[in-house]
Amino acid sequence: MRSTTGYGALRPEGQLTLRTIERRELRPDDLAVRVTYCGVCFTDLSALRTLSDRGGDDLLVPGHEFVGEVVAAGTDVTRFRVGDQVAVGNIVDSCGACAMCRAGQENFCVQFPTLTYGGRDRHDGTPTLGGFSGEYVVRESFAYHRPENLDPAAVAPLLCAGVTVWEPLRRWCAGPGMTVGVAGLGGLGHLAVRLAKALGARVVLLTRTPGKSADARKLGADDVVVTTDEHDLARAVSSIDLLIDTISAPHDLGQLLRLVALDGTLCSLGYLGPISLETMDLLVGRKSLASAGSGGRPSTQELLDFCGEHGITADVEVLPSAQVATAMRRLAANDVRYRFVLDLSDLPASGA
Amino acid sequence: MRSTTGYGALRPEGQLTLRTIERRELRPDDLAVRVTYCGVCFTDLSALRTLSDRGGDDLLVPGHEFVGEVVAAGTDVTRFRVGDQVAVGNIVDSCGACAMCRAGQENFCVQFPTLTYGGRDRHDGTPTLGGFSGEYVVRESFAYHRPENLDPAAVAPLLCAGVTVWEPLRRWCAGPGMTVGVAGLGGLGHLAVRLAKALGARVVLLTRTPGKSADARKLGADDVVVTTDEHDLARAVSSIDLLIDTISAPHDLGQLLRLVALDGTLCSLGYLGPISLETMDLLVGRKSLASAGSGGRPSTQELLDFCGEHGITADVEVLPSAQVATAMRRLAANDVRYRFVLDLSDLPASGA
Repeated sequence: MRSTTGYGALRPEGQLTLRTIERRELRPDDLAVRVTYCGVCFTDLSALRTLSDRGGDDLLVPGHEFVGEVVAAGTDVTRFRVGDQVAVGNIVDSCGACAMCRAGQENFCVQFPTLTYGGRDRHDGTPTLGGFSGEYVVRESFAYHRPENLDPAAVAPLLCAGVTVWEPLRRWCAGPGMTVGVAGLGGLGHLAVRLAKALGARVVLLTRTPGKSADARKLGADDVVVTTDEHDLARAVSSIDLLIDTISAPHDLGQLLRLVALDGTLCSLGYLGPISLETMDLLVGRKSLASAGSGGRPSTQELLDFCGEHGITADVEVLPSAQVATAMRRLAANDVRYRFVLDLSDLPASGA
Repeated sequence: MRSTTGYGALRPEGQLTLRTIERRELRPDDLAVRVTYCGVCFTDLSALRTLSDRGGDDLLVPGHEFVGEVVAAGTDVTRFRVGDQVAVGNIVDSCGACAMCRAGQENFCVQFPTLTYGGRDRHDGTPTLGGFSGEYVVRESFAYHRPENLDPAAVAPLLCAGVTVWEPLRRWCAGPGMTVGVAGLGGLGHLAVRLAKALGARVVLLTRTPGKSADARKLGADDVVVTTDEHDLARAVSSIDLLIDTISAPHDLGQLLRLVALDGTLCSLGYLGPISLETMDLLVGRKSLASAGSGGRPSTQELLDFCGEHGITADVEVLPSAQVATAMRRLAANDVRYRFVLDLSDLPASGA
């Protein structure tokens, strides 16, 4: 085994502490990646909060959007070499055989993809441990080339927040002549605004907070609709072709659907649980409600290439890895614009 | 006023009886249409059943998918002449100015379209009375040219049932290389199978009734999935690109969504009321739930032209108009394959 260090928690306490962790010896198609920066996602917070509900006594090491450098490669690796700058997202394997995998949507693998942490390796059954760590071992097919012209810390959030908004923008053909709405201005929302704008769409930010208007326009929004303002809502009715909904708390989908144009789509990101819907909000205007999350391999690399060409990164606040608890506490309070990234270059890659 | 006859009901009794009814004198853009055949839709049954819940004491004359001949035309009419064979659907006017109307989707007019019966004329406020009648007066812009090579009785249901399935088939680009599912084999479903097949799609009928399989294949279905058969359901998982759901009774949308393929759409037709949904059924495979109903002017004429070219009509059972009560009773029992049509040519056009 390859020994390294990482911030992990055991149930029930759920406190992240620096520990020695083991990575598998490289299999022929594996890369060992020296992790340098890892984004902090709401999913990490949620996984820690629900740690006591989980079965088993596995160690939880969060982190599923990270960048780093290849420090070793298995004998069959063809796409990477030692020294390559790479990035890894929230899935690290899938069945590879189902219709979803064959379509390059490993995120929807019918056998469920192997998550970067909190999953089980498909070969040896060991728990996967995430990127809040000095080193990660990953199949080369789930690593991506990182554009070297971009700030690596600010690239890390593209691997989860970024691709989660990128896939629906591409699926519904965001581009010139189209109005894209983005509901919520956080880690996902700010990237959705930036990417939709770069794709050529007219971008409208929807927010409950009038104070976010200036920031939204700086990110590229052409218009801002304050959803607590009846006048603002009225002027936006039936005006949005694709509405990317990044709000994770329960909220009124009917209100958002009324802003969607004829034949438009409201795409909610991430898992909302069971919902209720008045179907008249869909029928009048032949609107669609969709849901999406995460990304497949082709679109992840496509996003990174697009961001390299257009100079797009996330707005991040970088903290030394020892301040991981601060990042979690402030994230819980929504006190970040727009993503924390941990600097893990201060951890030894090898814990030996 | 123009006097004619029709089958109408007053609340609360809700019994259809032959009465003298008045049509407006022709306005400059009006046509007077001698009604020959009118389809019997579930909406008609529903309107009669709920008659006692309606305000006012208006007469209800059902019928909103009919064909006939122009017998008089207003001074400004340009698209029709006396003697033309025409068809009329379930809307007869709209605001003409909103985004939906400008897009040719008068069925979604934000001011609500004027229904062929049970509505109010936008100019004089009089109640609209439907096509179970010897004559109808309609703006020329809401009348359509009827393909004369087709059986007129079997064309009538195209004007409501037909266009309701046609619009989603066109919106979601049903055609070669695509699998279209049709849930429910009734007035709408049988036309959806026929039209999807004519558009070049592979067609799968979904039904709870194994006995409908042979009929579905005769209509053009390539495959039949019996939704009460677990084996059938399992083989159809994630296989349908566009699922046209014609089932009007409450049913399990989650079951249908699981049959939808990656990036596919479940389009429910007509108003389902409030629904509950498990969003995981949308998320995995990035699926869409949509709803639609009725049709706009351009697609109604497009459908009629397409049916003329491809020799497509509804399967109908024609009854003399005096048997309207029989039609209603048997429709309530689902005892029709697949649409009743009343022969109104036996009524005097003029009741004078």
